[in-house]
Parts: sequence; structure tokens; C-alpha cells
Amino acid sequence: MPEPTAPETPAPETPAPGRAPFGARLGAAMDEHGPLCVGVDPHPGLLDAWGLPRSAEGLRRFTLTVLEAAAGHAAALKPQVALYEPYGAAGFAVLEELLAEARSAGLLTVADAKRGDIGSTMEAYAAAWLGEGSPLAADAVTLSPYLGFESLRPALDLAARTGRGTFVLALTSNPEGRSVQHAGGRESVAGSVCAAAAAENARLLAAAAEPAARGGLGSCGLVVGATVGNALTELGIDLTAVRGPLLAPGYGAQGARAEELPAVFGAAAGQVLAASSRAILRRGPDVAALREAVRRSSGELSAALG
Amino acid sequence: MPEPTAPETPAPETPAPGRAPFGARLGAAMDEHGPLCVGVDPHPGLLDAWGLPRSAEGLRRFTLTVLEAAAGHAAALKPQVALYEPYGAAGFAVLEELLAEARSAGLLTVADAKRGDIGSTMEAYAAAWLGEGSPLAADAVTLSPYLGFESLRPALDLAARTGRGTFVLALTSNPEGRSVQHAGGRESVAGSVCAAAAAENARLLAAAAEPAARGGLGSCGLVVGATVGNALTELGIDLTAVRGPLLAPGYGAQGARAEELPAVFGAAAGQVLAASSRAILRRGPDVAALREAVRRSSGELSAALG
Repeated sequence: MPEPTAPETPAPETPAPGRAPFGARLGAAMDEHGPLCVGVDPHPGLLDAWGLPRSAEGLRRFTLTVLEAAAGHAAALKPQVALYEPYGAAGFAVLEELLAEARSAGLLTVADAKRGDIGSTMEAYAAAWLGEGSPLAADAVTLSPYLGFESLRPALDLAARTGRGTFVLALTSNPEGRSVQHAGGRESVAGSVCAAAAAENARLLAAAAEPAARGGLGSCGLVVGATVGNALTELGIDLTAVRGPLLAPGYGAQGARAEELPAVFGAAAGQVLAASSRAILRRGPDVAALREAVRRSSGELSAALG
Repeated sequence: MPEPTAPETPAPETPAPGRAPFGARLGAAMDEHGPLCVGVDPHPGLLDAWGLPRSAEGLRRFTLTVLEAAAGHAAALKPQVALYEPYGAAGFAVLEELLAEARSAGLLTVADAKRGDIGSTMEAYAAAWLGEGSPLAADAVTLSPYLGFESLRPALDLAARTGRGTFVLALTSNPEGRSVQHAGGRESVAGSVCAAAAAENARLLAAAAEPAARGGLGSCGLVVGATVGNALTELGIDLTAVRGPLLAPGYGAQGARAEELPAVFGAAAGQVLAASSRAILRRGPDVAALREAVRRSSGELSAALG
């Protein structure tokens, strides 16, 4: 195992060799393949449906099958870390293998971990998911801002140094999320998270080495549900100002159809990276059938959002 | 590896054999040893100071040394999961070993993981940290409610079924936390989290099988910083109504002294489980010196809060 980046002794401000900022890399992948992020969600029920055991080996076969189907046909892959945790260390070993294989296959990864803490503890989460040489390093990680957007600073800064990215939870469509995210009304919690991400991307894009990057997406993304309805208007949130990618769960299966997304995201539709898992995964375990579902979703999303 | 509890097929509502509710078990441990929770925080700088390598083996030796020093002298042990994650699967293997050894030693564990998500994803986090037979099962886990307190329901319910507990982030003292936790003013986010925990404990305590448990602590705890100052008064929050344990980071080292805690927590002082890590851990690696620091902190806290 490579020695992990020590959280208390961050590397100097040197970009990782040969790695463009995450926002630029994601933008290029979305242009090439369409704005689909394939969720790797090994729910126990899906393992059953695929004829796989509920074990680390079943988890591994599921995971590598989804990777094989998605590589070259989707912008990114999003493993749901929660579904690996019940298997303990053995589950994390599968996650390590997925992240390494995806890197080899040139497929961007978003670790859906929703981590969040303060100070040197947050530094450790950042080192784990965004640090050079970490066995769990992904291209981006999802973060949760209950301790304040600025508490996530160690991850934002490490991402900038290593050409990686973040997706901070902003606004979701689950009804119980309103009690936190809508609090404050027109000065809502969700609105303040969006404003902070906008400021972060403005800073990152202004400092970008390549002129082309300055017109593209910043590396600080947000998680905004595809089925939030008119909540964005209600809270007075302008997502175009964020200038970062918008990871949108809730597309496909029982969620939103591709053609409904422009109504939700308006002028920010071009920033949307739509996440889909079940609608695609239920087509497995046949790789060809999975790949066909990935291609169809990527195409639908390109047509609707492109 | 034992097959993990399948998140989609929860066990029926039968308490785990021979395990009293977490609140009752924690209350008894606090009565016996004093209200100290020893943080197991293997910061890279502490590994250096202890003469240990920044590797999984260094992590393991650090972890088992803290366990040896704390067993029989503190109410609980709180491994900081973030500090294990940079080592990937190898770090989680150390965490599995710690949790199993603590169980054998009769020492309660609080996995400080600050997890939070929705639906079947939250079920998976619950299964990982609170599920019977899971390799990472602890006595309690910390949770983050950005998606709403009720989004944590799968963990609250599984904890009730397995005699385990939760500590939900409510109010912290880091300045950037105000943007979320204080939002809404007198109808603040932090206040709504406290109210929801109060309702949860009222339900749990009313349903308790043993009359003695009804007068004790519920199993839904909160995380409330030891250095929040007058924020509780400012937001109109009454922690006695919560009737659950209050995990209070910020005691010791650069934080609050034991004798300052009653001013912060008032009539809820008896519910406080004070977390201390650096003030104790900097006394290592000598086990006797660590144990002496644990005993002294436990004694100070008993005197101040008991």
C-alpha cells in the first residue's frame, strides 16, 4: 500500500503533473460522451437479481461489470460508498480496485461518500479521497456541509492542488431535506452553499493556467436533485452563477426523464451531470445490455441538455 | 467475513439478545467510569510523536495502545473514522480489529463517521455501523443531518432494533458552522435537530421494556460542542428536553476545562459525554501515562458534571 499523503503536511501548491483541473476534464468528458454519470450502486437486491452472492466477491463482480459497460460510453462513474461499507475492509478493497481500474480505463470517478468534518479531521477525509497516492483517490468526492461550507476548505484546496474536484450537497428533493436546506427562506442554507461554490469557482477559474479553462466549468461542483421542482426559483437560486458542474441524482427509474431536466435547471442545463443507477443497472448482468442502456441514456441526455 | 445484514431486508423488530438499549448501557458506563469518551485520533503528527510509522501497522499499534489504556477507565472510545480512511482497506481492517477488541474488553464504542444520506443508501450506512454481524458494527455512530433529521430514520430504527445508538450533529463551535446550524434564527436548524431528537427519545423511552430505562438516557444522542458558549441560549434550545446523551467535543487541549462545562450545558450537564483526544493522546505511547491521563480526565469530569 502506498503511504498516504499525510494530512498534516500538505504538499506544496504544485499541480499534479499532467493532470488538468477536474472541471476541465469533466467538461471534455461530457462533450465527448454526453452528460451521464453512471451510479455504481450494488444494492443487495441488485446483487440477488444479477445472481451474485451478497459477499465481497459478489460486490467485486458487480462493480467490475458496471465499469466494463460504462468505460468509453459515459462521462463518469459514481460508486456509492455507502453500499461498500457494510462489507468493511473487504468492501473498501473492492472500491480501491474499481478506482484504479477506472483510472486505467480513462473513466472519471466521483466517490459518492458525502463526507464532512472540520479542521485536521476534514484534512484526513480530503487526503483519503483526493490525495496523491491515496488508495481511495477518486477524481472527485461528494461532501456534506452541515458544519458549514468553509469547513470543507481542506478538501477544496487539496482538490485544486491535485487537479481533482468536489460536489457539495446543496439542494435535494427528499421532503425531509427542506428542514435544513430551505431554512432561512430567501437567505436559505442551500442558497448560501450555492453562493459559496460560485465564489470558489470564480477564484479557481480566474487562476486557471490555460485560457480555455477560464470559460469552462470550475472544479467545485454541487449536488442538486433532478426532481427539486421549482425550489430553485422559490429560493431565488441562480445556478448559472455557480459555474461548476451540477451532479443531479434523480434522473431515470422513478425520477425525472431527460426531457424534463431543462425545465428544472433552466439556463444551467449545460452544467448538469445527470446520475443514473437503477434504470441502467437493472439491465445487468449482461454487459452488452448494460452498455446499450448507458449509450441510450447518454444520448438522451445529450439531446436534452447539450 | 460475516455476511453483512442486507440493507434491503431489515431484521424484524426484535432486540438483539442480551443487549440493553444503548442509552441505558452508556448511562451505566458513565456512572461507573465518569463521563469521558476517549477519542482515538491517529493524526499523522501523533504517529510521528509516538515513534510509529505512517502506515497501517503504525495505525494499528497506536489504536491498540489507546484501547489498552482506556479499557476499564473511560465510559467509551471514539475512533475518528476519517483518520483511518487515508489508508484505504488496510485502515478499515484496523478499525474492524479495534471494534472487535473493544467489544471483548467491555468498552463502548462510538464510530465518529458523520454519515448521512437518504433512503436505501442510508440503510446501507446503518447496516455498516449498526447492523448485527457487520465487521464495522460499533455501539453508536455519529450522523450528519444535512439531508434532514428524518433522512437518518433507517439508522435510528436499526439502532433501536439492535440496542445501538446514534449521535446526530446538532450544534458545533466552529465559526463557519453558523451559516447552516443557526439559519432560521429562533426556528434554527440546530433547534429543529434537537427537537427531533427529543421526540425520538420520548418515543424510545416510553417503549422501553424495563421501568428503570424510562428514567434514563434515550439512545438518540446529539453532538454539541463543549465550546458553543451562549449559542444554546441565543437559539432558545433546551437540551434537557432531548433526554439523550450529548457528545461534546472540545473538552481538553485548547478547548474547555471540565469546570467550564456546567456553564455551557446548564441543567443538561448530567447528559454530557465529553470527548477528549489530544490532551490524552499526547501522553503516549507509554500505556501507564496514557491510562493516568484517562483516569484524571474521567475524575475531573465526574466532579464537574456528576
